[in-house]
Amino acid sequence: MNKKNILVGQSGGPTAVINGSLYGVICEGARHSDAVGCVYGMINGIEGFLADSYMNLSETLSDDDLELLRLTPAAYLGSCRFKLPENLSDSFYRVLFEKLERLDIGYFFYIGGNDSMDTVSKLSRYAAQIKSPIRFIGIPKTIDNDLVLTDHTPGYGSAARYVAASIREIALDASVYQQKSVTIVEIMGRHAGWLTAASVLARKFKGDNPVLIYLPEVAFSPDAFIEKVKEKLTKTSNLVVCISEGINDGNGTFVCELASDVGTDTFGHKMLTGSGKYLENLVKEKLGIKVRSVELNVCQRCSSSCLSATDLDEAAASGRFAVSAALNGETGKMINFIRKSDDPYILEFGTADVNEICNKEKAVPEEWITKDGSDIGDEFIAYARPLIRGSVEVPMKDGLPYFAFRK
Amino acid sequence: MNKKNILVGQSGGPTAVINGSLYGVICEGARHSDAVGCVYGMINGIEGFLADSYMNLSETLSDDDLELLRLTPAAYLGSCRFKLPENLSDSFYRVLFEKLERLDIGYFFYIGGNDSMDTVSKLSRYAAQIKSPIRFIGIPKTIDNDLVLTDHTPGYGSAARYVAASIREIALDASVYQQKSVTIVEIMGRHAGWLTAASVLARKFKGDNPVLIYLPEVAFSPDAFIEKVKEKLTKTSNLVVCISEGINDGNGTFVCELASDVGTDTFGHKMLTGSGKYLENLVKEKLGIKVRSVELNVCQRCSSSCLSATDLDEAAASGRFAVSAALNGETGKMINFIRKSDDPYILEFGTADVNEICNKEKAVPEEWITKDGSDIGDEFIAYARPLIRGSVEVPMKDGLPYFAFRK
Repeated sequence: MNKKNILVGQSGGPTAVINGSLYGVICEGARHSDAVGCVYGMINGIEGFLADSYMNLSETLSDDDLELLRLTPAAYLGSCRFKLPENLSDSFYRVLFEKLERLDIGYFFYIGGNDSMDTVSKLSRYAAQIKSPIRFIGIPKTIDNDLVLTDHTPGYGSAARYVAASIREIALDASVYQQKSVTIVEIMGRHAGWLTAASVLARKFKGDNPVLIYLPEVAFSPDAFIEKVKEKLTKTSNLVVCISEGINDGNGTFVCELASDVGTDTFGHKMLTGSGKYLENLVKEKLGIKVRSVELNVCQRCSSSCLSATDLDEAAASGRFAVSAALNGETGKMINFIRKSDDPYILEFGTADVNEICNKEKAVPEEWITKDGSDIGDEFIAYARPLIRGSVEVPMKDGLPYFAFRK
Repeated sequence: MNKKNILVGQSGGPTAVINGSLYGVICEGARHSDAVGCVYGMINGIEGFLADSYMNLSETLSDDDLELLRLTPAAYLGSCRFKLPENLSDSFYRVLFEKLERLDIGYFFYIGGNDSMDTVSKLSRYAAQIKSPIRFIGIPKTIDNDLVLTDHTPGYGSAARYVAASIREIALDASVYQQKSVTIVEIMGRHAGWLTAASVLARKFKGDNPVLIYLPEVAFSPDAFIEKVKEKLTKTSNLVVCISEGINDGNGTFVCELASDVGTDTFGHKMLTGSGKYLENLVKEKLGIKVRSVELNVCQRCSSSCLSATDLDEAAASGRFAVSAALNGETGKMINFIRKSDDPYILEFGTADVNEICNKEKAVPEEWITKDGSDIGDEFIAYARPLIRGSVEVPMKDGLPYFAFRK
């Protein structure tokens, strides 16, 4: 059999398990030494590769390195945000395919979200057009969990676990004082509320914090919000409210854009505030109560402290499955997750047409959000609970997590 | 021997190990059943106790509950920020001591920082004045590590570990893209830079991120900062800069005050947020480069994910030591830590005059900060390294940490 090489890249925002998928690709590539020559990694995705930036992963990484890679958050190979030309006749494609052929690439894997699947779609369509035998497979990755045609995406489970654990701790922290207070926690998710919804998992009993949860899927009304906060404060002295960064009025205006009285710095420039900061000011103004806003920020996507074993295992498995699929002749596909059962949790891997996935977004189903739009229903809990299960021990040195990094 | 009861309270901001100290007090109290009746806990500190809010901890908590308490962040008993009258003739003291006598309290323990030691100081002085036999002991607690007459304080090690681990992960996250960028991380610390200094522990090699570290101990110049960032960007494409929330111009003006209005808390402390946001805008304005600011916020003090075993063990031990000291007749003291050696790390416990501790702040020594004020020296690393060592496994249920809480 004529051996071909693998080229793998990472694209879009970091997650805690994107390197788990890379690990899966490398391991499965090595297992098929009859068909696979070596595994090359694009440095900084397709953009870096175009500038001849790549590395031979098969040669560089020892078994110990590979194990460390598996447990390292962010993106070992570096990432990019690079949109390929819409026109497949663009010389970009000719140049890129010449580079692929020069490296004798037979299998191309791209680990990423919506935009990365757009890359896989275009490259596979171009390959079909010029009858190139190179196979292109997308491996899903996003903390946003917003890819269609898959039950969920690697990266989501660990981020969801981080969010739920942090909210449980923030709720403890917020409750130490007697005086009434509101704590607003802003969670990532511009258009889809999956990650914010995960905050409901922090609740230990009915009525426990977070008492209010707002997703971008439901039109947000500041007035209704203030009324709700007032009502809930009669039962819960220290209220924790979780909001998606992307909460909006339902007509395309984000809450953070409503701030008319944002501060200015010494240069007279507007200090841009987030949705949480805006609502903090609103609560202060309308209710005159102690209020704080907290942005979970990048830690929710890059922390190794809350790695979900389920998530990490699935990330690695989807990398492995991608190599098998490509070797079996598939191309123009994304690896997808098919859930057979919530409890016991049973998952199968499959492939779906990448053209049906790219540039689409999967929202949290309306029926999983309570009618007044301020809470999450039990269907979501049943869906999300299995995804955050299992702890992963990260290697420690001098009290700190020790990670793989390119020297 | 005439048995007396213990009264213990928690005060000031939460930490990851303040309940570790409470656990130590309860366990040691139980061990001395010859001299100690039961252990009462003030709910919401001295403020709650004045309103007759307290609980019998000896009766309420089983051994399993106690173990869970040991691993629970924030403050199980609730906290307060309540300043006792300066005038010891105030009727406040008479009323309080009547309540103490009614509960047959012989030993009073207050777990907290500067302000809490002020409480212990006043109560012990009042007791001396009225010749009350009740003994008052302070147990140190603060993530700020700013108490004098002690090598360090419980709460600091775990917060420092959280900061260092998070910065290591944020640096990975910040480095995935090719384009130059600056990430500014704002860390807690109004007047003392101990916690921000801990970010240096994240560095894996000389020149690694965080490349720049700014503490409130050194006058901060925005112009010099911008020049430094420009210079460092020539060697490090993705720069991570750590700053204390309290960086200031050396004449009492906080950097964040250059940006927006600030409020004050009940002690008249300025409530600081936004130094990072201010510098983010400054970098954008002056260098036109991709820049982001991240506030570690309350997670750095309430996260259980980075509990330092050293810190937690010392917190519990200082609770135990406090009970022994009180039973040995000491009063008007704070438990202090005396370091005998960095490597091997050897620590002894002692007591210090609480009147010499309250209302003072210990800064990071000038000689531990580099001359240009933008980095931390090796002396600090030798000091801080032992404090973040050792992991603690927190009980998990359904993928999330499970904590003790008052029902």
